[in-house]
Amino acid sequence: MAIITLTTDFGLKDHFVGAIKGAIYKELPDVTIVDISHNIGPFNIQECAYILQNSYKHFPEGTVHIIGVDAEPTPETKHIAVLMDGHYFICADNGIIGLLNSETPPTKIVEIAIHNADSSAFPTSEVFIRVACHIARGGTLEVVGKPYNNLHEVRDLAPSVSDGGNKISGVVLYIDNYGNVVTNIHKNFFEAYRKGRDFEIQARTKVLRKIHRKYSDIIDYNLDKSKRKGPGELLAIYNSANYIEIAIYKSNPRAGGSANSLLGLDYLDSITINFK
Amino acid sequence: MAIITLTTDFGLKDHFVGAIKGAIYKELPDVTIVDISHNIGPFNIQECAYILQNSYKHFPEGTVHIIGVDAEPTPETKHIAVLMDGHYFICADNGIIGLLNSETPPTKIVEIAIHNADSSAFPTSEVFIRVACHIARGGTLEVVGKPYNNLHEVRDLAPSVSDGGNKISGVVLYIDNYGNVVTNIHKNFFEAYRKGRDFEIQARTKVLRKIHRKYSDIIDYNLDKSKRKGPGELLAIYNSANYIEIAIYKSNPRAGGSANSLLGLDYLDSITINFK
Amino acid sequence: MAIITLTTDFGLKDHFVGAIKGAIYKELPDVTIVDISHNIGPFNIQECAYILQNSYKHFPEGTVHIIGVDAEPTPETKHIAVLMDGHYFICADNGIIGLLNSETPPTKIVEIAIHNADSSAFPTSEVFIRVACHIARGGTLEVVGKPYNNLHEVRDLAPSVSDGGNKISGVVLYIDNYGNVVTNIHKNFFEAYRKGRDFEIQARTKVLRKIHRKYSDIIDYNLDKSKRKGPGELLAIYNSANYIEIAIYKSNPRAGGSANSLLGLDYLDSITINFK
Repeated sequence: MAIITLTTDFGLKDHFVGAIKGAIYKELPDVTIVDISHNIGPFNIQECAYILQNSYKHFPEGTVHIIGVDAEPTPETKHIAVLMDGHYFICADNGIIGLLNSETPPTKIVEIAIHNADSSAFPTSEVFIRVACHIARGGTLEVVGKPYNNLHEVRDLAPSVSDGGNKISGVVLYIDNYGNVVTNIHKNFFEAYRKGRDFEIQARTKVLRKIHRKYSDIIDYNLDKSKRKGPGELLAIYNSANYIEIAIYKSNPRAGGSANSLLGLDYLDSITINFK
Repeated sequence: MAIITLTTDFGLKDHFVGAIKGAIYKELPDVTIVDISHNIGPFNIQECAYILQNSYKHFPEGTVHIIGVDAEPTPETKHIAVLMDGHYFICADNGIIGLLNSETPPTKIVEIAIHNADSSAFPTSEVFIRVACHIARGGTLEVVGKPYNNLHEVRDLAPSVSDGGNKISGVVLYIDNYGNVVTNIHKNFFEAYRKGRDFEIQARTKVLRKIHRKYSDIIDYNLDKSKRKGPGELLAIYNSANYIEIAIYKSNPRAGGSANSLLGLDYLDSITINFK
Repeated sequence: MAIITLTTDFGLKDHFVGAIKGAIYKELPDVTIVDISHNIGPFNIQECAYILQNSYKHFPEGTVHIIGVDAEPTPETKHIAVLMDGHYFICADNGIIGLLNSETPPTKIVEIAIHNADSSAFPTSEVFIRVACHIARGGTLEVVGKPYNNLHEVRDLAPSVSDGGNKISGVVLYIDNYGNVVTNIHKNFFEAYRKGRDFEIQARTKVLRKIHRKYSDIIDYNLDKSKRKGPGELLAIYNSANYIEIAIYKSNPRAGGSANSLLGLDYLDSITINFK
């Protein structure tokens, strides 16, 4: 049974998500539709990329991913269908494909050529669904449109290195549901420059000298309970996407605060790492 | 495979949605359940109607739509099952059916007569699920209850016309996820009175003289990028439901503002259109 | 077709939910995945228990429930799989199983022994999914790990009785989507001590002397509409989970207020009942 996923900035109140699902089921009754997220910040393709890149790889190869963020076609932004990393992506060519940071380049890209003259304010439901169902039925990209070689690129939020390889400058890429602060510094990037050295992560006024693998690694279970660290403790961790994350142990943004609120670290704020 | 949709004001935190889905799957293991929205404003059947009318038509005919908004039965509000426009609706007779603005009147309405004495504070899970599964299995409305001819009507939020057909007075029907302001003035209604004339849409202190088909229509792609209009620009558009919508191009309610916040336009506020 | 449910504190924006679903479908393409809630308060196992206990019983026996709340394994918190009340639960042994208030004790509990050395910050996706799919395929708990007899217990939010059985002291267990205030006083508990007597429920400065079965029971439909009680009226009710709930009739927390906001009653605040 084919899978079609949805990643959008439509929110979960409006009729958009329901309308899309209805239209997909009408075309393809036995497809499986999976919501990745409908709470992407409006038009925020950087955030969309972070969420989608950490989701799509878990799906079976051949899954079709509809990206309904900043998807209105314009003379300068084409609708495209992309085969990359064994997965299909249907989106506007607004830069999102490059931001997904796939380890392999796209295998195939076509410009969608099935728009009708009557296209409206809601392209996702009209064009994306038809293409998604076509692919989900086993159809080829060649039928959808002509090869497209002009992929739009936008500035990736990549960390930079300075001071002769002694300093990494990154930024906050994402604030998660726990208020934990995800940086744009990937484990592989960090380790490539670290070369086994000691380091200091500077997050506002706080300095962290260790990166954990699990949140509970900050607790020494050999100590008596009264002497242990616990909820509220600041730590750095490789998160499930392998980015360095500044976290509060058992953080609750709605009570007691989070790394985001307590350190005042927001989207695009700086994080630096100095090697010793 | 039959489809049952859910449109409720239950929210997505409480146990209600999970409980309903469990009970449906227990009765009918291979049904497809689709969430239209669980974020309808509590007891707001006008809002429910707007969201459902723009969703249900996209589903295949024969789909069963459970409406869990203001659904407690009372001596004056019966539980009903309705066949309309090829779709089944299960709801309380609180006015919602009339508000759905179907182009055809209901084909069949029955008063649900399968309540047990032990009905509780949560009617949707007990009665609506049994009726929905009965219909989804191919059962008839006749088995559910007796014909019902007493459909409750509530004031529709229809626009009015004055000044000898020169003025349309409408209101804000809905604020969407982008903070865009949807009016109750449908394209067909507008065009019927416009008769090709110029017009001015008055939205608070702003005046708009054009209604676009796509958000990006405000951009002249022949101009140099530095000279174009862009994000933040106010426009009017026929939205995907064909209502006139006052929008901000690439609006983000959480950053920079939206038509809703910048113009101070809220649910039921006035919008007027004058023809020249 | 097997059912796997998800109850987590992941929220609906992050990639976690999408990643989990993708991984489940990759292992078990024709499973049915149902979201119970992803909006549990971070690490709040009391809230998780309230929502899950009122959802899971509605699912068919044999359903597998993944609990992704406070799920990181530590030397003192094992991952377990539990058969209870005909349902399977996969979780950390953080006290949640005892809090579910099943009427029958667990039939079988095993400590999950399929962790690999490389476990990361995101246990749910790695271990829980493998165990859930194993059970959903019809596999036995014996294969998952060894019997476990050391179930962790946490303080349940049970009401207490004093004054020779004349007073019940409870607390607020949950605030629902309507802002209604659910107490920890179950109908059975209340009736066992009431023994037919009159009573006064004290909720802040308000006193209620009746517990209704339906919200609309406060309305006397024999009266003229202008003389009836209506929206905004305070009442006590047995909610759909059979706990005593303090509610506002047709409450809308976003407009006009709710029992939660109007009475200033929050999670863990006191509610007392005195018998006459």
